[in-house]
Amino acid sequence: MRIYDIIKKKRDGFELSREEIEFFIKGYVDDSIYDYQASALCMAIFFKGMTEKETAYLTLAMANSGDTVDLSRFGDKTVDKHSTGGVGDKTTLIVAPIVTSLGCVMAKMSGRGLGHTGGTVDKLESIKGFNVELTPEEFFSQVEKNGVAVVGQSGNLTPADKKLYALRDVTATVDSIPLIASSIMSKKLAAGSHTIVLDVKYGSGAFMKTAEEAEVLATEMVKIGKNCGRNMAAVITNMERPLGKNIGNSLEVIEAIEVLKGNGPEDLKEVCLALASQIVSLCEKISESEARVLCEDALASGKALEKFKEWIASQGGDSSWIENTDLFPKAKYKFEIKAENDGYISKMDAESIGIASVILGAGRETKEDTIDMSAGIVLNKKTGDRIAKGDNLATLYTCNETSFNSAKEKYLSALKFSENSISEKALIFGIIK
Amino acid sequence: MRIYDIIKKKRDGFELSREEIEFFIKGYVDDSIYDYQASALCMAIFFKGMTEKETAYLTLAMANSGDTVDLSRFGDKTVDKHSTGGVGDKTTLIVAPIVTSLGCVMAKMSGRGLGHTGGTVDKLESIKGFNVELTPEEFFSQVEKNGVAVVGQSGNLTPADKKLYALRDVTATVDSIPLIASSIMSKKLAAGSHTIVLDVKYGSGAFMKTAEEAEVLATEMVKIGKNCGRNMAAVITNMERPLGKNIGNSLEVIEAIEVLKGNGPEDLKEVCLALASQIVSLCEKISESEARVLCEDALASGKALEKFKEWIASQGGDSSWIENTDLFPKAKYKFEIKAENDGYISKMDAESIGIASVILGAGRETKEDTIDMSAGIVLNKKTGDRIAKGDNLATLYTCNETSFNSAKEKYLSALKFSENSISEKALIFGIIK
Repeated sequence: MRIYDIIKKKRDGFELSREEIEFFIKGYVDDSIYDYQASALCMAIFFKGMTEKETAYLTLAMANSGDTVDLSRFGDKTVDKHSTGGVGDKTTLIVAPIVTSLGCVMAKMSGRGLGHTGGTVDKLESIKGFNVELTPEEFFSQVEKNGVAVVGQSGNLTPADKKLYALRDVTATVDSIPLIASSIMSKKLAAGSHTIVLDVKYGSGAFMKTAEEAEVLATEMVKIGKNCGRNMAAVITNMERPLGKNIGNSLEVIEAIEVLKGNGPEDLKEVCLALASQIVSLCEKISESEARVLCEDALASGKALEKFKEWIASQGGDSSWIENTDLFPKAKYKFEIKAENDGYISKMDAESIGIASVILGAGRETKEDTIDMSAGIVLNKKTGDRIAKGDNLATLYTCNETSFNSAKEKYLSALKFSENSISEKALIFGIIK
Repeated sequence: MRIYDIIKKKRDGFELSREEIEFFIKGYVDDSIYDYQASALCMAIFFKGMTEKETAYLTLAMANSGDTVDLSRFGDKTVDKHSTGGVGDKTTLIVAPIVTSLGCVMAKMSGRGLGHTGGTVDKLESIKGFNVELTPEEFFSQVEKNGVAVVGQSGNLTPADKKLYALRDVTATVDSIPLIASSIMSKKLAAGSHTIVLDVKYGSGAFMKTAEEAEVLATEMVKIGKNCGRNMAAVITNMERPLGKNIGNSLEVIEAIEVLKGNGPEDLKEVCLALASQIVSLCEKISESEARVLCEDALASGKALEKFKEWIASQGGDSSWIENTDLFPKAKYKFEIKAENDGYISKMDAESIGIASVILGAGRETKEDTIDMSAGIVLNKKTGDRIAKGDNLATLYTCNETSFNSAKEKYLSALKFSENSISEKALIFGIIK
């Protein structure tokens, strides 16, 4: 078998065999296939696509290219949730306690933030004492005990995907549905859960700019997962504007706690319930409406909040901070952005708002940057809201006073105003199963 | 400017600017742009093509990426001829003396053979004493004196094309018309002649398998040359079967001499006259039919043969070998392939016949191989010929007795026979100007 022939076959529109795809991934990981051949193949895939079979084989080959997590000891109730990345997305902090309070098992590896999107692991670390670096033994015994643990990524998971993604990133071959789908799903398959529910976001702050594009990606990923024997669903959600009101690590944890306490913004709560219902429905083999009732009850009864405290405490976190969120350290500086005119907010660019929060210290521009846990933005007005001159649009928090001006400028560049009220796009565009 | 954006722009079907193309070529030659980015761009070009402007800019950027030959001292009568490669193609040996005997100036760099096609420089070296390695001064003074010199490629000509071609060769991005056309034309532009006539071959032994494909490539190359201010024409010729009867270095020189002496096979003579007429017509600004008469006369009168002797002698060759071709060393072994049945030859695969001649020692499989100048094949029967059982189909020459069997097998695998006579494809499919 020669990689040249594989590139040519794909270029000419033929379907690659399982053996050819495995040959490529194996050879690329062991350096017998060169970057310049892999990038030519990725560009050919960009143009010619991949069939359902090819995509499944590629995903499996990447999933099996390194370590895999064996969760079989927990039976078939293991669940995972994945978001394609957004601004203000703290859903894992809410969904995990809801579903694990109802008997699902979540043994999850999660990422750190980079660029305009945050990461669950960073957010959890804003809770005093919380430890995201468990040994595999600690991780498994934690899951055994509480049904939930969330740790940072460790081990040599999907090296093929890591290498290929880095290459695609510099060769303009990222935007290919089968390549995006197989990249995400290879990590999910390697992470070992039986049920996987995806939060595929659309809009200015998301990778997929339109709901229709998100639907195509979601459909592809659901197919891959099913073809690999997993329970799958995807919820397509709105990222035209940030989710909830708080952006920044401790600010997002505080907001998640508010939701778990029965308060918090409606949009955040609704997305969490949609995701949790899908997970519980698939995991417990019950209807969506039955699952929805259970999830709403877990929130309303305080069961999910209790599970959250138990989880946080079991990973070393100080659960008194959950009871009293005033214990989270406050940012040194606080600054309000005021409306200069009456009207409506007609558009918020979530990506720019994410970048504004990074400027304030809430995120990383490069992997080496450190995070200011207290920094961030609280949105007081969102798309569609009526505003009067002088209203507080948003409150900016930081420990670095000099960042205000550029963060404010970035924030304001993200907003568009209109004189009339506008209609908003759907919060939940659809569900793919 | 970033190469990422250039790849993406091409991928998305937009036209690249001159600056972007020059940025790519410059960066690729100075290693600031990586192979994996260049291969992704080539694959995007494979799918999206290039506009006439883009192709001209790419060609010029590659032509100017290294040394260029300045032939301006010879005025506007400098001419070049390029063949896209075939089997038994000895046209340069005939066309050069015809056109230079009529006042054109040919200061030509030519290649060596590799794979199934031979190279003019190797062929010339089969003449005792002929020196293809002249210094630039010797080269120019030779041209000054005789109006003709042919040397091997030297200097750092079109390094961008060399690097890019080697990359395309291992990434399945060779078969792109704008990339093929710009690769060939960049070398022709760098070689400096004012008039360029291309022999674009079609058929089993050529790079372009059909006449229609060859026409597309020819049209593209003629456009590039014209856009870069050169006199251009292309002749589309048949390479369904080898050109002429002799394949192999000294065998081909002997056949060329036969044509110059007024004999030789009709197909070879016709292709040479077509090419020479185009050159003379463009160079002397006369009609094709006037040029044709001049070229025919140059052959018939012996003027071209005289010019050939003069040229060979001036580059150190023993011109007595031209008068008496029996002086060329003979191969040690000779073997005839006999027809096993009556019928007609319905097909000859020129590429396989070229490979058979390489097996006999006439060519190189790798750049390091040495050539047996006397080895080769004389075709006694060609496509369309009637054959009777026992007829000599071809005579094989070699100094390596053990090569016969596999060469014979390869030769016979190239032939197809039929009971009835067949109609042949056009020797000259068309002319593009």
